[in-house]
Amino acid sequence: MGFTFKIYEKDPTSSARRGKIITTHGEVETPVFMPVGTQGTVKSLTPDEIKNCGVEMILANTYHLYLRPGHETIKNMDGLHHFMNWPRPILTDSGGFQVYSLAKLRKILPEGVMFQSHIDGSRHLLTPQKAVEIQEALGSDIMMCLDDCTPYPATYMQTKKSLDLTINWAKLSREAKKPSAQALFGIIQGGNYKDLRQKALEETVKIGFDGYALGGLSVGEPQEIMYEIAHNFTNALPVDKPRYLMGVGTPEDIVYAVSCGADMFDCVIPTRSARHGLLFTNDEKIVIKNARWRQSDIPPDETCDCYTCKNFSRAYLRHLYIAGEILAMILNTIHNVRYYTRLMERIREALKENRFTQFKNEFLNNKGGV
Amino acid sequence: MGFTFKIYEKDPTSSARRGKIITTHGEVETPVFMPVGTQGTVKSLTPDEIKNCGVEMILANTYHLYLRPGHETIKNMDGLHHFMNWPRPILTDSGGFQVYSLAKLRKILPEGVMFQSHIDGSRHLLTPQKAVEIQEALGSDIMMCLDDCTPYPATYMQTKKSLDLTINWAKLSREAKKPSAQALFGIIQGGNYKDLRQKALEETVKIGFDGYALGGLSVGEPQEIMYEIAHNFTNALPVDKPRYLMGVGTPEDIVYAVSCGADMFDCVIPTRSARHGLLFTNDEKIVIKNARWRQSDIPPDETCDCYTCKNFSRAYLRHLYIAGEILAMILNTIHNVRYYTRLMERIREALKENRFTQFKNEFLNNKGGV
Repeated sequence: MGFTFKIYEKDPTSSARRGKIITTHGEVETPVFMPVGTQGTVKSLTPDEIKNCGVEMILANTYHLYLRPGHETIKNMDGLHHFMNWPRPILTDSGGFQVYSLAKLRKILPEGVMFQSHIDGSRHLLTPQKAVEIQEALGSDIMMCLDDCTPYPATYMQTKKSLDLTINWAKLSREAKKPSAQALFGIIQGGNYKDLRQKALEETVKIGFDGYALGGLSVGEPQEIMYEIAHNFTNALPVDKPRYLMGVGTPEDIVYAVSCGADMFDCVIPTRSARHGLLFTNDEKIVIKNARWRQSDIPPDETCDCYTCKNFSRAYLRHLYIAGEILAMILNTIHNVRYYTRLMERIREALKENRFTQFKNEFLNNKGGV
Repeated sequence: MGFTFKIYEKDPTSSARRGKIITTHGEVETPVFMPVGTQGTVKSLTPDEIKNCGVEMILANTYHLYLRPGHETIKNMDGLHHFMNWPRPILTDSGGFQVYSLAKLRKILPEGVMFQSHIDGSRHLLTPQKAVEIQEALGSDIMMCLDDCTPYPATYMQTKKSLDLTINWAKLSREAKKPSAQALFGIIQGGNYKDLRQKALEETVKIGFDGYALGGLSVGEPQEIMYEIAHNFTNALPVDKPRYLMGVGTPEDIVYAVSCGADMFDCVIPTRSARHGLLFTNDEKIVIKNARWRQSDIPPDETCDCYTCKNFSRAYLRHLYIAGEILAMILNTIHNVRYYTRLMERIREALKENRFTQFKNEFLNNKGGV
């Protein structure tokens, strides 16, 4: 009863598919969006609120939890699910991306990456083996291999060197993993170079993982490049394993990537935007502080079934935001997370009813197209 | 079907009593504690969470809501209950205390108080009539008369002069109030001078209100003085009207004041302490950031039935607090508000079972006594 993945439908006119991930902590319908719970909390939401938004799986950041409160502490508290009171599936990243984006004095070595904590300046060496060990201590359902995240832009040689490291680390991660119900996913790097991406894909698949991720996206590259990589390489991944597009993305990005065959997504956009007073709807992104909402008695989205939309007006949300109230962040986050899970529900519904391409075209045209 | 107050039991060995306030927005068991919802939100809680804590009535601040978003806006949004989605009773203060404590360039005039907004420096004149008008626009169930809050310490002459103003303003407030289901409470000032407190009491009761408050407490005076005033004057208030001890207080203060005959309390202590990582229990006040909780798997209070205590460990709450997470404030606030409402439930239970004085003695001795 370990980690399994089933596919229900394949879309006849695209590479999209609908399926289910089964873990020891429950089942996850795919395509799925995972809200980001960086420090063992999806910012500003209680686990009950996360569940009520229809979330089935969240992502937690290994880098943050390793530094604070420490993976040993979480292990002693019976693992991350128990610690944060989230009984459903959790995916942990490897920490590599946060070392790349947050840590000070980062130094890449053949055996791993040396860095200084952004919290207290302490020095750490994160190796592929250590990343697996930390994630095993956290007890996540899906672990990710430590990769070297190639920056954008990068030369061919830089990218190749970085990729060789990632592939080597993938092998070491695979070897380090203890037998358990925890799944381990490989990450395909290779930047913006087709042959390197192809090489990454072949070599990583050869090692053999429970699922595969396209990495090195959402690192500042133009949308066209991200779309091209998603288009060229998602459906080239093994058909019987979950495919995860890391760090993606906007609602439009997700709908497009589903058509390329991606099953899993994570992004801080819904939660971070909420804290900045941006609310997603199908029509427009609402800037809640705008004076036009001062006496607006309608909810953010009249078609939405979330707690915020069922109970509060734009006028009240505007007031909370301008007054700097914590409740502004809570209610905005509830709505945006629910917007994303509803989007995934609509995508799965369209797949079930064999009308995904129609849904995709309508959705992307409505947004101004891609 | 206006505002009514019923008494169920009077304690045989103290002035304590158990009763019920009935408003058009529902009933409130007394003695009651009202969490403070300054800007139309009890900081960091959703209305559902407030209800789940067993809260029956909240307090909102007229000063803040008048300045932002404005009472006319709230009136246009069908009143404060609808605006903030809190269908249960609301008490609004008059704004006088916040003008006293927050506003810039405050100037007392015979007709009211001139002040500058702490938000944008704009000038305003708050008169007794205006305070009633604002509270009528907000639509609160209980309105308070504008009073002049005498500072501590103050000379006899300062206090007398301030009191004369408060009594005159009480008359003007009473005259300004439109007939409605909204109740209006008078406020007894008089500082630390018995004869002035007595005069305030007689004159205010002569005007005739739906309830009476002891004001000018919790303004920096020693606890003994507050206890003496509560002891001497609470039970001197009309027996058939609710008695409200404004701004009180700690759990010990409340238990003591109930024995003096007080029915209603409000204070920022539970919510503000929560945001600073202090958690109330019957045994000790927990400082959640302390290293001793690093791997503590017990909840803040094993006897507590709140969402926080039912689901989270001290170790997790410590992690959230140290990591600066919003969820720390949410979960801590849920617990502290529930601690206060449970305290009031225990007080009412003791009154019902004719053992309040025993409860009081045990509670206060357990805390080191008074």
